Amino acid sequence: MFDLDTILLNALHEDVGSGDITTESCIPPELTVHGQIVAKSRTVLCGVELIGRVFSLLDKDVNVSIRFQDGSVLEPGTVIARTEGPARAILTGERVVLNLLQRLSGIAERTRNAVKEVEGTRAKICDTRKTTPGLRRLEKYAVRTGGGINHRMGLSDGILIKDNHIRAAGGIPQAVKAVREYAPHTLKIEIEAGTMEEVREALEAGADIIMLDNMDIEQMRESVEWIAWRAKTEASGNMGIKSLVEVARTGVDYISVGALTHSLCSADISMNILP
Amino acid sequence: MFDLDTILLNALHEDVGSGDITTESCIPPELTVHGQIVAKSRTVLCGVELIGRVFSLLDKDVNVSIRFQDGSVLEPGTVIARTEGPARAILTGERVVLNLLQRLSGIAERTRNAVKEVEGTRAKICDTRKTTPGLRRLEKYAVRTGGGINHRMGLSDGILIKDNHIRAAGGIPQAVKAVREYAPHTLKIEIEAGTMEEVREALEAGADIIMLDNMDIEQMRESVEWIAWRAKTEASGNMGIKSLVEVARTGVDYISVGALTHSLCSADISMNILP
Amino acid sequence: MFDLDTILLNALHEDVGSGDITTESCIPPELTVHGQIVAKSRTVLCGVELIGRVFSLLDKDVNVSIRFQDGSVLEPGTVIARTEGPARAILTGERVVLNLLQRLSGIAERTRNAVKEVEGTRAKICDTRKTTPGLRRLEKYAVRTGGGINHRMGLSDGILIKDNHIRAAGGIPQAVKAVREYAPHTLKIEIEAGTMEEVREALEAGADIIMLDNMDIEQMRESVEWIAWRAKTEASGNMGIKSLVEVARTGVDYISVGALTHSLCSADISMNILP
Amino acid sequence: MFDLDTILLNALHEDVGSGDITTESCIPPELTVHGQIVAKSRTVLCGVELIGRVFSLLDKDVNVSIRFQDGSVLEPGTVIARTEGPARAILTGERVVLNLLQRLSGIAERTRNAVKEVEGTRAKICDTRKTTPGLRRLEKYAVRTGGGINHRMGLSDGILIKDNHIRAAGGIPQAVKAVREYAPHTLKIEIEAGTMEEVREALEAGADIIMLDNMDIEQMRESVEWIAWRAKTEASGNMGIKSLVEVARTGVDYISVGALTHSLCSADISMNILP
Amino acid sequence: MFDLDTILLNALHEDVGSGDITTESCIPPELTVHGQIVAKSRTVLCGVELIGRVFSLLDKDVNVSIRFQDGSVLEPGTVIARTEGPARAILTGERVVLNLLQRLSGIAERTRNAVKEVEGTRAKICDTRKTTPGLRRLEKYAVRTGGGINHRMGLSDGILIKDNHIRAAGGIPQAVKAVREYAPHTLKIEIEAGTMEEVREALEAGADIIMLDNMDIEQMRESVEWIAWRAKTEASGNMGIKSLVEVARTGVDYISVGALTHSLCSADISMNILP
Amino acid sequence: MFDLDTILLNALHEDVGSGDITTESCIPPELTVHGQIVAKSRTVLCGVELIGRVFSLLDKDVNVSIRFQDGSVLEPGTVIARTEGPARAILTGERVVLNLLQRLSGIAERTRNAVKEVEGTRAKICDTRKTTPGLRRLEKYAVRTGGGINHRMGLSDGILIKDNHIRAAGGIPQAVKAVREYAPHTLKIEIEAGTMEEVREALEAGADIIMLDNMDIEQMRESVEWIAWRAKTEASGNMGIKSLVEVARTGVDYISVGALTHSLCSADISMNILP
Repeated sequence: MFDLDTILLNALHEDVGSGDITTESCIPPELTVHGQIVAKSRTVLCGVELIGRVFSLLDKDVNVSIRFQDGSVLEPGTVIARTEGPARAILTGERVVLNLLQRLSGIAERTRNAVKEVEGTRAKICDTRKTTPGLRRLEKYAVRTGGGINHRMGLSDGILIKDNHIRAAGGIPQAVKAVREYAPHTLKIEIEAGTMEEVREALEAGADIIMLDNMDIEQMRESVEWIAWRAKTEASGNMGIKSLVEVARTGVDYISVGALTHSLCSADISMNILP
Repeated sequence: MFDLDTILLNALHEDVGSGDITTESCIPPELTVHGQIVAKSRTVLCGVELIGRVFSLLDKDVNVSIRFQDGSVLEPGTVIARTEGPARAILTGERVVLNLLQRLSGIAERTRNAVKEVEGTRAKICDTRKTTPGLRRLEKYAVRTGGGINHRMGLSDGILIKDNHIRAAGGIPQAVKAVREYAPHTLKIEIEAGTMEEVREALEAGADIIMLDNMDIEQMRESVEWIAWRAKTEASGNMGIKSLVEVARTGVDYISVGALTHSLCSADISMNILP
Repeated sequence: MFDLDTILLNALHEDVGSGDITTESCIPPELTVHGQIVAKSRTVLCGVELIGRVFSLLDKDVNVSIRFQDGSVLEPGTVIARTEGPARAILTGERVVLNLLQRLSGIAERTRNAVKEVEGTRAKICDTRKTTPGLRRLEKYAVRTGGGINHRMGLSDGILIKDNHIRAAGGIPQAVKAVREYAPHTLKIEIEAGTMEEVREALEAGADIIMLDNMDIEQMRESVEWIAWRAKTEASGNMGIKSLVEVARTGVDYISVGALTHSLCSADISMNILP
Repeated sequence: MFDLDTILLNALHEDVGSGDITTESCIPPELTVHGQIVAKSRTVLCGVELIGRVFSLLDKDVNVSIRFQDGSVLEPGTVIARTEGPARAILTGERVVLNLLQRLSGIAERTRNAVKEVEGTRAKICDTRKTTPGLRRLEKYAVRTGGGINHRMGLSDGILIKDNHIRAAGGIPQAVKAVREYAPHTLKIEIEAGTMEEVREALEAGADIIMLDNMDIEQMRESVEWIAWRAKTEASGNMGIKSLVEVARTGVDYISVGALTHSLCSADISMNILP
Repeated sequence: MFDLDTILLNALHEDVGSGDITTESCIPPELTVHGQIVAKSRTVLCGVELIGRVFSLLDKDVNVSIRFQDGSVLEPGTVIARTEGPARAILTGERVVLNLLQRLSGIAERTRNAVKEVEGTRAKICDTRKTTPGLRRLEKYAVRTGGGINHRMGLSDGILIKDNHIRAAGGIPQAVKAVREYAPHTLKIEIEAGTMEEVREALEAGADIIMLDNMDIEQMRESVEWIAWRAKTEASGNMGIKSLVEVARTGVDYISVGALTHSLCSADISMNILP
Repeated sequence: MFDLDTILLNALHEDVGSGDITTESCIPPELTVHGQIVAKSRTVLCGVELIGRVFSLLDKDVNVSIRFQDGSVLEPGTVIARTEGPARAILTGERVVLNLLQRLSGIAERTRNAVKEVEGTRAKICDTRKTTPGLRRLEKYAVRTGGGINHRMGLSDGILIKDNHIRAAGGIPQAVKAVREYAPHTLKIEIEAGTMEEVREALEAGADIIMLDNMDIEQMRESVEWIAWRAKTEASGNMGIKSLVEVARTGVDYISVGALTHSLCSADISMNILP
């Protein structure tokens, strides 16, 4: 990821500010230490690349050896990486490394749990735009790491016609026509539908994907049957608190879960300095 | 906050990318709409200032009228703000507004619950550096909005001597001496202590604040009694899963809770376009 | 376009540097002038919004009144806009305004000519990624202004499987399968095909769009007939020097023309200061 | 050029966005390839330094070996450079490399043709400020590479008194006096003149360079003779469509040609992956 | 100055950091105050424009009324500007305003003293590149405000051939030839000379300006006489500690004084809040 | 210092602009030279790390060998560093290196003189916020290098209650209470006092540090005696022109000297190219 450094430098500025005064006071510049980054709870690992990058932004002499790759499922106590080098850089960079690693691993873990819940069904778990401002790319990467797939990155790389668009355009057919005129032909057309009536209109208008929004399980099942693979189907709306397997058994192709990223449970990962 | 726009522009770039193609296709530029931003769950409100800023970055003709100030406790169904203006800007900006508002309000709500839990004790709830990279200032503001207080912003505006510092300096007295030589005299000296032995050393070395780190309730109580107000005390370490009131009853001055910011439950806030 | 100012400020820095010394020497700060921006050759107009923005970045007291909207076809001698205000800002900003306006209008004009050439056929003219680094969004907007449509903005918002991808993946079916696993489901799959054999494979693999790359007219016609609307077709490869109408008559859905943006003929637009 | 990376990173952001999804889907991270960058039409080469830089911004393991230096005149089919390394980085970076290389080489080629046209005369070909916003330094470098010389970089490093300046200052002598008072003494004074009368005034006022603006060939010759080397002369105004050799034979010292940069014909350069 | 805000925002970030906690604690947001900015020592005023800009970056409701323009000579006790508006913004912005205003006025004052010292001679006082990194444009503006003129802004807008250039090029004639080939023809050629021999060579090579570097008064006088207006002359080298009037009486055209900017004595300016 | 490069790149942009045309004209790219950076006056050295960084930003092939570390006291004529590598980079980077090195060493020298003046007393010399916008961190580092200590970096990492805060809050006790409610508990509370009356109030309100502002020597002595170590004391106000030793003998703990940074005398350091 060629622009990861921008995020990391920003995070370092924010945390280190004008300097880590405790460390600069107590730790002589020539002191070197060994440290290890350890998973303290069970988690899917995500973000190992950034460990080395953060430390090397602080001091090129820090060596990091990664022992597990992103996507690994770690048991509590697993050593993720060893670091070795100037004590100052290792102590100063610790928090930025952990803040990111914990968040990304937390998302990957949560995604993996959702993916496992729907195993054996046709449904795929995908994310939404409900991500942390500034970290979307990293968070969407964490979703992929956990086995999910990504919905559109943002408003410019996917078409999603919602009821406000439909009303303003004068109806579903008019909205679809407008999109066909204006938007790149390389994008599929997804239309949000909350009722069977809207599902029918969306299908007739030529939707590639129909988002079944805030429907109950029964409505979803009925919609999926009626659509009968003439379009892809995506279940959406408060999926974080529904039974994903029940949703999946309606036969939908995709389930988009905002809670993967908007309600975060950071993984428990810490760094120890070895004596 | 004079640099809020930097965060908001960054968030807009990330979400809007090269343009909201669905909206630009379906919505004529001259169409105006009325919308309202509504709390759907009970929450402390935080971040209203950004609503107007996000929309005005997209189009200066969007008007926003705020009905509740930050810190208000909202019942489900409360209308937080009304927006009126060009439909394109309002639809395009919706997600960035909500992503931030939900997160900040979620943190404020969580903080308020923690504050209420320790009500009647001397303990104050404070945050940590376990914040989202890029959003620390906003998240620390949300903690204050929820009634908490802020620990140091970063490594440059507070001294916290941990065991690694102590070991490298050769002991607590040496570490404190080094800090007194080097660090600005305007900062208090906080020392981390995990045992009564360390508490004693910290106090003797002249600590202004002693962090009781990962102690059990009994150890904390004993430490607080022994210190007897000769230094401030701060309870720390997995406070997100402990009974805060039990901790508070040990008599500590501060309880720092990483989970206020590292394990986020976004508030449920949405925007409706009025017909 | 909420981030147009970034491009314009960059352009001003580049041109104005540490100050327009001729103007600052000769023109008293209080002098005001009237100017007009005039098309000197026939062109489609594109970029009027930036006129006001550039001048207001230099001095908020410059007034600009726009007389034609983007997309207007202008005869030589047409006054596009009038400007009125401090002479210094108007003289200093002139070149940046014209450099952008001329380029964007030149692209819009060229696109319009291409669109007119294929009028009456089913083919739509679209652009490519062969744009000026730093100006892609503006140039793609100019293509739309001229009546063309946009191909993907960049590598993240469209899937285009080329022969290198196919070879690395081990064949078209494998490449398509990989994309289905990994890429957002909101994107269509476009596959590049240079021979009838590849066209057949692409279609069988389930391509949404088949790019007929560097084929001669006869091959294109044959491909389009064989595909028979089971996928969209896009003609590509040196379209800047081919007869677009001949290409269009093969029945392709899209013709992507790199020369719309990579070989630019700026429109002739200038600014006069009225005496 | 110590800040080339800023332009290249900007170009990569624009093109790669949140990631090259086709490549990331189809190409395994460990696959390496060999590629070559080839001139497909005759051109002056310009910009080879950026090839290695773009690829190394994406992946430090890409090796680039340059076979021709900037300024070389290449026959069609010439291999400009070989690249070797991770397939992902090479495929992802290709378009940014080519977009810049084609433009710069196109400008160098056009400049060289202009320079050759006036060979044997005293006239030197120079550029103008009609460059692409954001790329001026690169484009002016391309002009030098093609054998031209640069006019001023921007408004702060050259004095060019035009009729608006003269009118506002109250006459040529007043304008020159103002410039002598205000502007750095290290800059020459150039004055625009459209008639013999203005030429005379400019010379009397002590112009170092007189710009013969939009004169016909006869007027230019007359002006040059009258000036008789008491000042340098520069022919300007639609030089892109005039016979440069005729202009040169009037005896002018410089001919400034806006079309070198404002009407671009990209060189035809492409990248092949070797099987 | 269209990019002044960049410098001011940077200065505010640096000083305000994550917020002015004293002010935010003590001052209610709705409190308004009146303040005045007062010169406490005699000085030339420079930088009034930034007063309003700094405060408006913090809060648009601060009103600033300027009572003296840049270049005014102020007696101690003079009120430069009045400010009125939210107390928080006024207290928070005070230091950034004063830090810049004091420095720029200090430079203007020092320049004016130098200019007055050489009054009645032909010599003009000019600055050098020995400015504060990041503030060159402002500091060179302060020199102009004090009545000095600017030497080149940087390495790209002036030619100054020093002995290292001469040695590398193989002699003065070769260096001048190289510059004539390569550099924009709009720039004069200045050559550094430390001895009469070098002065002679420089003149013969066609220097427009000869820098008399580190000569004593007698050498300067001799050089000026010998040159006899065939080139401009500039005295340079430790001018901060020489008698400027003695230097001026040698007849040089320019005296460049590094100390104008490298050895700063800030003017004494403060802000009072009116009761 | 992980973000030093940002300052250095900014400085290079400012000075080098679009290129060092004299050097590029006269110096062949392959020429290498040896240079040395020499202290020409007595000074404390500060900033050696930036020498290598500036040159390597221009060309990675420049080698710099540092012979003295920051904090060394240098006699005139001491060689600080040797540089070896491409002549172009060394000549182009010289001014930026010297401008920073001279300023930082000048500040370190001035601080050292102040520190020596109060030797033998309990007083420590500290800096203020009167630093150069954009260079605060570097300048505060220079103060430490000269043996001083740093006051707060900015408004967010220290509490300093001044009379305006007191008046707005309704008195010293109210202001202190407000700060205790709002500000991080990790910061000490400093209160400005100009009279004995204010000193008393500040002490009673629980000030950690009392700033004796603009008092005469007698008042200071009386205040220090009365306070009797119940709070730290800091002398402030025009310390640049007072006898520091007299101030120190009053028994104050700290003396903050704005003149360390606001009235700069650059050290005399230059670079020689060896023949």
